[in-house]
Amino acid sequence: MKVLRSVMQQKEGGIAGVLVVQADASMAVPGNRPELNALPLRYTKKTCVEHRIGLRPIKLEATTEQTSLHNKNMASMMFTDCSSSTTSLLIHLNRRSSNTFLRQSVGQLRLRTTVSGRACSLSIRSADAASDKVIDGKAVAKTIRDEITVEVSRMKESIGVVPGLAVILVGDRKDSATYVRNKKKACESVGIQSFEVRLAEDSSEEEVMKSVSGFNDDPSVHGILVQLPLPSHMDEQNILNAVSIEKDVDGFHPLNIGRLAMRGREPLFVPCTPKGCIELLHRYNVDIKGKRAVVIGRSNIVGMPAALLLQREDATVTIIHSRTKNPEEITREADIIISAVGQPNMVRGSWIKPGAVLIDVGINPVEDPDAPRGYRLVGDICYEEASKVASAITPVPGGVGPMTIAMLLSNTLTSAKRIHNFQ
Amino acid sequence: MKVLRSVMQQKEGGIAGVLVVQADASMAVPGNRPELNALPLRYTKKTCVEHRIGLRPIKLEATTEQTSLHNKNMASMMFTDCSSSTTSLLIHLNRRSSNTFLRQSVGQLRLRTTVSGRACSLSIRSADAASDKVIDGKAVAKTIRDEITVEVSRMKESIGVVPGLAVILVGDRKDSATYVRNKKKACESVGIQSFEVRLAEDSSEEEVMKSVSGFNDDPSVHGILVQLPLPSHMDEQNILNAVSIEKDVDGFHPLNIGRLAMRGREPLFVPCTPKGCIELLHRYNVDIKGKRAVVIGRSNIVGMPAALLLQREDATVTIIHSRTKNPEEITREADIIISAVGQPNMVRGSWIKPGAVLIDVGINPVEDPDAPRGYRLVGDICYEEASKVASAITPVPGGVGPMTIAMLLSNTLTSAKRIHNFQ
Repeated sequence: MKVLRSVMQQKEGGIAGVLVVQADASMAVPGNRPELNALPLRYTKKTCVEHRIGLRPIKLEATTEQTSLHNKNMASMMFTDCSSSTTSLLIHLNRRSSNTFLRQSVGQLRLRTTVSGRACSLSIRSADAASDKVIDGKAVAKTIRDEITVEVSRMKESIGVVPGLAVILVGDRKDSATYVRNKKKACESVGIQSFEVRLAEDSSEEEVMKSVSGFNDDPSVHGILVQLPLPSHMDEQNILNAVSIEKDVDGFHPLNIGRLAMRGREPLFVPCTPKGCIELLHRYNVDIKGKRAVVIGRSNIVGMPAALLLQREDATVTIIHSRTKNPEEITREADIIISAVGQPNMVRGSWIKPGAVLIDVGINPVEDPDAPRGYRLVGDICYEEASKVASAITPVPGGVGPMTIAMLLSNTLTSAKRIHNFQ
Repeated sequence: MKVLRSVMQQKEGGIAGVLVVQADASMAVPGNRPELNALPLRYTKKTCVEHRIGLRPIKLEATTEQTSLHNKNMASMMFTDCSSSTTSLLIHLNRRSSNTFLRQSVGQLRLRTTVSGRACSLSIRSADAASDKVIDGKAVAKTIRDEITVEVSRMKESIGVVPGLAVILVGDRKDSATYVRNKKKACESVGIQSFEVRLAEDSSEEEVMKSVSGFNDDPSVHGILVQLPLPSHMDEQNILNAVSIEKDVDGFHPLNIGRLAMRGREPLFVPCTPKGCIELLHRYNVDIKGKRAVVIGRSNIVGMPAALLLQREDATVTIIHSRTKNPEEITREADIIISAVGQPNMVRGSWIKPGAVLIDVGINPVEDPDAPRGYRLVGDICYEEASKVASAITPVPGGVGPMTIAMLLSNTLTSAKRIHNFQ
């Protein structure tokens, strides 16, 4: 059995989780019903379990769906704390036939809560732990976009405000145009309004500044992105500094980075890619506190803020870079590795401590005559080797990549909520 | 023979170094003259050596002084690159008698330069390497204050501007009053003008804000310090944020910290204590690039900015903190340790890799009935044990302590130079 999605989220006042597993034939045991029988939660075909943790009752609802999933050989579950305001969601489990359930779909279900100060976690493990390795960024990003969609529509209904993201694109770079188009599409998919200014390659810095300043003043815009790189005749830093700190959804302003680095301070925005990395760890319920974490690469955009984020969550963090003499020795000590260097397959299996969790930010094209375009994308981490050693790993593509845009949407929503003081 | 000071500094266009050694009787060889004969520099009683490195001639001047040093059993040397604008300084070497010099006063003198892109370093080793351990912060701080004195007077003579530091003290805390008095004295000693406002314990936040704002606008003030802690009825963060970023000589503004964290950005000011730590490493010619560095403690004031500074100099940095599970294992890998946790003697000899360089920021009082005040000060690092393993270590007191105030003066001078565009 293969776990396709195994996601949990802490919400204020409750928890929610989802598990999607793909069955193989051996799992189908006629007459069996799936059971979530570790800890106090017991699953039956339709059941509603109350469990008291601390002083506060938490109700977990689970229902099988009788629809046509059985052809897809899929099972899914979703938990929601019924005492919170979020909608309670269904647990779907595949029926191979009308009498066949996947008995071993869940091997363990642990439940803790932040109530009374204890940590809240919902951990879902498949019976076959070895197959539980892939950190499915695409699925998590989808879940996050779904959550954003709900929030955007709730905001619109409650106060009539639609979050807005503005993108400024200068010049004719094809890759930049693609990125901007993808961001626009992503906005539309969750109901965020998108604004766009396209300026010619030979525009002046003042023209760009004027666009920035226009969006700074526009109350329907809550996030501003200047698509990089800018033409070489412009001062990138000047232009980025002109973006209002309240709308800096990229989170690259030094004031945001400073607050990220400081204890007791909170950044307005966290840069999207490193935020996506940490979000994956959270949603896959990876313990960060007290763990050894190694970040490979120290860029302003990924490595450095990722290290600051891990540090904020009480990891013991080491940053490795081009001047590090023995990177493999250091990575071998890490419980968590985030790699963002852009070196295809640099991190080998021998670099990895058994059981480590690997987040691979690298998206590197390598030649491959068999691939449709003549190349394929690989990460910084040699997936084939590493996945044999690690306890969890992000694939490339489909790992961190989809998270970046989801976090951009999330930052835009956060910004709109903050500006309009909407909870 | 014991090396008391062994300091070198890279300046724009040149290098300068100083060595102070204390002789023992065995070193006195009648008729011998001290020689600096490693590499191309040869020392005689009075000599002036030209050495060409790359395309640029560097002239090192060295002269014995015939004064009454011989009773003190001390030797000192100071090098200056004569081709730079700095004054050339004397090498003093003790004469045990009129015919006796310390032949072995210097075992090795290496000289490289940044010219043609090579690293510049002046390393002075005593013949007895084991005694070369103490990183004498007091002596380095003195040297720095001397340098500041020269610069302050040069600035005054050239453009008629005297750097000014303003301190705001609220309430009657004795320790705070002592710190402020020391800062004032330090300012006076280097020719920096000091300003002071004392407000009563029960002053309002507005009154403090008014003082801050007055100093922000005062052109004769180039640095502003709000002595912490403030009375509990005030919002510290609000008040600190009110200090103009151009005069934030403490370097604690999130914008400064953000720039410190980011590649390609420069902070206006670096926080004084961590800056002092790195300055000690520089002046003792400790290689940082590519080295494993461990910072113990992650405070906004010392640990975190120290880690960022080490990272900027291409060390591979790990921050250890209260949640770190195996601190001693991690410190044992470090070539450089900076400790700032405030735990007396926490770091034991067994935590340290042989040959490591140790910078101890901790100043912890421990009971000692034999001490005049009933207590003595110790660092975070168990000096007795660590000094047997380390290649260099700062004592407590007399290590990092004196550097903090020297760096505050340095930041104030930097601020005045920047505001008046004075090179």
